[in-house]
Amino acid sequence: MSDDDSIAKLPVAFDARNFRRALGSFATGVTIITTRAAEDIPLGLTVSSFNSVSLEPPLVLWSLANTSRSLEAFRQAKHWAVHVLATHQESLSGRFARAGEDKFAGLALDEGIGRVPLLPDCTARFQCRNAFQYEGGDHVIFVGEVLSYDFTETAPLVFHGGRYAHATRRDSPDHSPRGAEIAGSFSEDFLGYLLGRAHFRFYARIRPLLTQERLSDEEFFVLSALTLKHSVSDISLGQGLSGMLEKNAEEILEALAARGLVRVTIGSPTAYELTETGAACAVRVISAAKSVEHEVLGSLGPADSPALKSLLGRLLTVIDPDASALWQAPKQIQS
Amino acid sequence: MSDDDSIAKLPVAFDARNFRRALGSFATGVTIITTRAAEDIPLGLTVSSFNSVSLEPPLVLWSLANTSRSLEAFRQAKHWAVHVLATHQESLSGRFARAGEDKFAGLALDEGIGRVPLLPDCTARFQCRNAFQYEGGDHVIFVGEVLSYDFTETAPLVFHGGRYAHATRRDSPDHSPRGAEIAGSFSEDFLGYLLGRAHFRFYARIRPLLTQERLSDEEFFVLSALTLKHSVSDISLGQGLSGMLEKNAEEILEALAARGLVRVTIGSPTAYELTETGAACAVRVISAAKSVEHEVLGSLGPADSPALKSLLGRLLTVIDPDASALWQAPKQIQS
Repeated sequence: MSDDDSIAKLPVAFDARNFRRALGSFATGVTIITTRAAEDIPLGLTVSSFNSVSLEPPLVLWSLANTSRSLEAFRQAKHWAVHVLATHQESLSGRFARAGEDKFAGLALDEGIGRVPLLPDCTARFQCRNAFQYEGGDHVIFVGEVLSYDFTETAPLVFHGGRYAHATRRDSPDHSPRGAEIAGSFSEDFLGYLLGRAHFRFYARIRPLLTQERLSDEEFFVLSALTLKHSVSDISLGQGLSGMLEKNAEEILEALAARGLVRVTIGSPTAYELTETGAACAVRVISAAKSVEHEVLGSLGPADSPALKSLLGRLLTVIDPDASALWQAPKQIQS
Repeated sequence: MSDDDSIAKLPVAFDARNFRRALGSFATGVTIITTRAAEDIPLGLTVSSFNSVSLEPPLVLWSLANTSRSLEAFRQAKHWAVHVLATHQESLSGRFARAGEDKFAGLALDEGIGRVPLLPDCTARFQCRNAFQYEGGDHVIFVGEVLSYDFTETAPLVFHGGRYAHATRRDSPDHSPRGAEIAGSFSEDFLGYLLGRAHFRFYARIRPLLTQERLSDEEFFVLSALTLKHSVSDISLGQGLSGMLEKNAEEILEALAARGLVRVTIGSPTAYELTETGAACAVRVISAAKSVEHEVLGSLGPADSPALKSLLGRLLTVIDPDASALWQAPKQIQS
């Protein structure tokens, strides 16, 4: 990075898009800032340039473009409110980032100091007196004195690199389970080990039911995969499960067929689908698995649960890129 | 949140700690800001109050406490530089957040405009002219004109709620694999399904070797667990693996012992440990698994890999809270 060629230097004008990308490398939360204009019109904007300034007096700041149609209203306003958005408010962020629609339509608004509209369900809200305005190039820097605030411990919406993101708490370096790693031993930090333990442990919760239904883990996995598709061919099954299970996929399907759970239609290609009994059996186990999922994700929390699923999904696109035939494209085969 | 009782109102003085917590709900990146003081002394501070202001002219800002010992130096400085920290720079952030040590010791510094010390390996760097200083209560707001910048596409360090965090890209709501979820079917977004597929698919990469070594997935899992401990008792094994595997843990260990991979010392408690042959076998498979891990995490990237491991680790504390005996506390048993 210290290479002179890679450094943009004045008086060369910055490429605005490139400069924006550089600035975007600083992650931020997302806020909506609202006020009530003189003509009694509620205004609101999505803003990521928010930050804290001072504790005594309590001050926060944000910037607004000189070209914004709301600039004059905010310049004149006596009060405005900052809403720090929670992870579930991505669509609200999008709504207030666009111009032209009635942004407040259908929202259960509170009324704040100076009759400023307050949005519900945010991570934090700061009601401010419009204290100072400073020159900031093509933006005006608004500094507000916080008159009132409220907050909850909910997960925040994050913006980074031009996209929304999850913030996932880091493990403290002291707590990360490394220990003395001997050559050839699994460290507890090893992905294969974590996946194995998580998977085996998840299945352990439904094992009594699996045992009762006489299903092995692999049989249940194949059965549950069949619930995703109406019917599946031996070809796409071969592609989708190739090398994945210990037993041969056909062998598993034959065993399931022998117990009346799967119907096999020999042909070219051969097709497999759940029988009514098979579907009913799958429903029983999947319902149990879903209640385990519900409980587990409840404990993991609203920020970490979607982040974990996103990351596992992304892991699968890396580790299982050829899965399209079985897992992605819905493909119906006449049976 | 709209409950009046829960809202702090002026003239009630804010509780500083509570107000800080409210402000901390806004996630930010982490920067280090450096300058060179008049006496040629390099200065640097960890700052999260950074944000962008203007594109034309290119301006950024940050705030510094009136009580900071570096305030006068920054007030007088002609230039300063902002370093947006990458995910691997948590310890650097800690170093520059503390007073009193030689913060720059041992760092491979570049020299920037105005001889400002520049830190290496950051996500982005902005070299600035000290353009304006504005009053901000108990802080001074520094606005800098960016004269030069450079950046790389590395994952950022994030600060939220008083802790460091990972930023994990969200799935676009349009891309999340929901589809029409039928009652009793697995959706592709289901955790149990994602874990199963990820685990089976990970193991698929080493299955040829497992087959060659005549190890089932569960046998390999138990074998690899044994590499974590010198020796393990039947009691802690029973607690650690209870209900986790399809086969009984003792049965698996007997099978491994019959092939000379595990030594059983009957007693009270009975102890299991790897034989030399068992250790060598584990080394072969684990080495292969590690190279799969290396490849997979390389594709997943430097931000998502530690986030995924953190989250799986946290999932395990939820789903496997009683695992301490086998997995956590190192316990040596004389054999």
